[in-house]
Amino acid sequence: MREDLKEDSNEGWLDSIQWDDKGLIPAIAQETGSGKILMMAWMNRESLALTRQTGHAVYWSRSRRKLWHKGEESGHQQVVQAIRLDCDADVILLEVEQRGGIACHTGRHNCFFRELRDGEWVEIAPVLKDPAAIYKKS
Amino acid sequence: MREDLKEDSNEGWLDSIQWDDKGLIPAIAQETGSGKILMMAWMNRESLALTRQTGHAVYWSRSRRKLWHKGEESGHQQVVQAIRLDCDADVILLEVEQRGGIACHTGRHNCFFRELRDGEWVEIAPVLKDPAAIYKKS
Repeated sequence: MREDLKEDSNEGWLDSIQWDDKGLIPAIAQETGSGKILMMAWMNRESLALTRQTGHAVYWSRSRRKLWHKGEESGHQQVVQAIRLDCDADVILLEVEQRGGIACHTGRHNCFFRELRDGEWVEIAPVLKDPAAIYKKS
Repeated sequence: MREDLKEDSNEGWLDSIQWDDKGLIPAIAQETGSGKILMMAWMNRESLALTRQTGHAVYWSRSRRKLWHKGEESGHQQVVQAIRLDCDADVILLEVEQRGGIACHTGRHNCFFRELRDGEWVEIAPVLKDPAAIYKKS
């Protein structure tokens, strides 16, 4: 880890957070302007420190067990406008500008594209771009 | 458990959900109209079934280890307009009407009242009602 990152992750504001038993906190990304909820992912201490430092959302991928610089492959980065914390200090809310207008890996604007109607999950939002075109192998 | 509740919680739409290793899923409550994020809490299978059945948000309190009918003491119920599910089926988004205009137990409109500014968490929203007046002992 670079020395300047190490220093930043020692900052006191990170100590206020109630990390869960895996050292994580849920982070909700809300789109500035539209107010739409784009996604929810998880952060560890390092990813939250990096989010502040870089000004771009950095999550912790639980499946890949590594830092996930949102948009690193797709270019669909999230530019952070504000970082908020809830009353119990165990949920983060990011206000972000969504580059490319696509937050979801399915190619949709956001991840909450299924709605419960008459006891069935119904898709309510279109695919804006084919994921195969978003995640091109280099 | 009442027989009709038991039947409802057997419904297939609940089987689509990726419950975590504790049998829970995070549920974000967003205010209809304003688009503000009110809070995030947790649901188990029974609380989500009850949320649909009653039309009011019912969470699972991890600290009290029991069903939490939001507003049961305060009257600040959340009337559910829509239930949405994300791409990985592991986060719920509720669109709700917030009775009393107060979602947070601190007496604020919502729980995300701290914002990171110059490396410090700063309170950015006022207390609308004294919690002592909200949670009167009967």
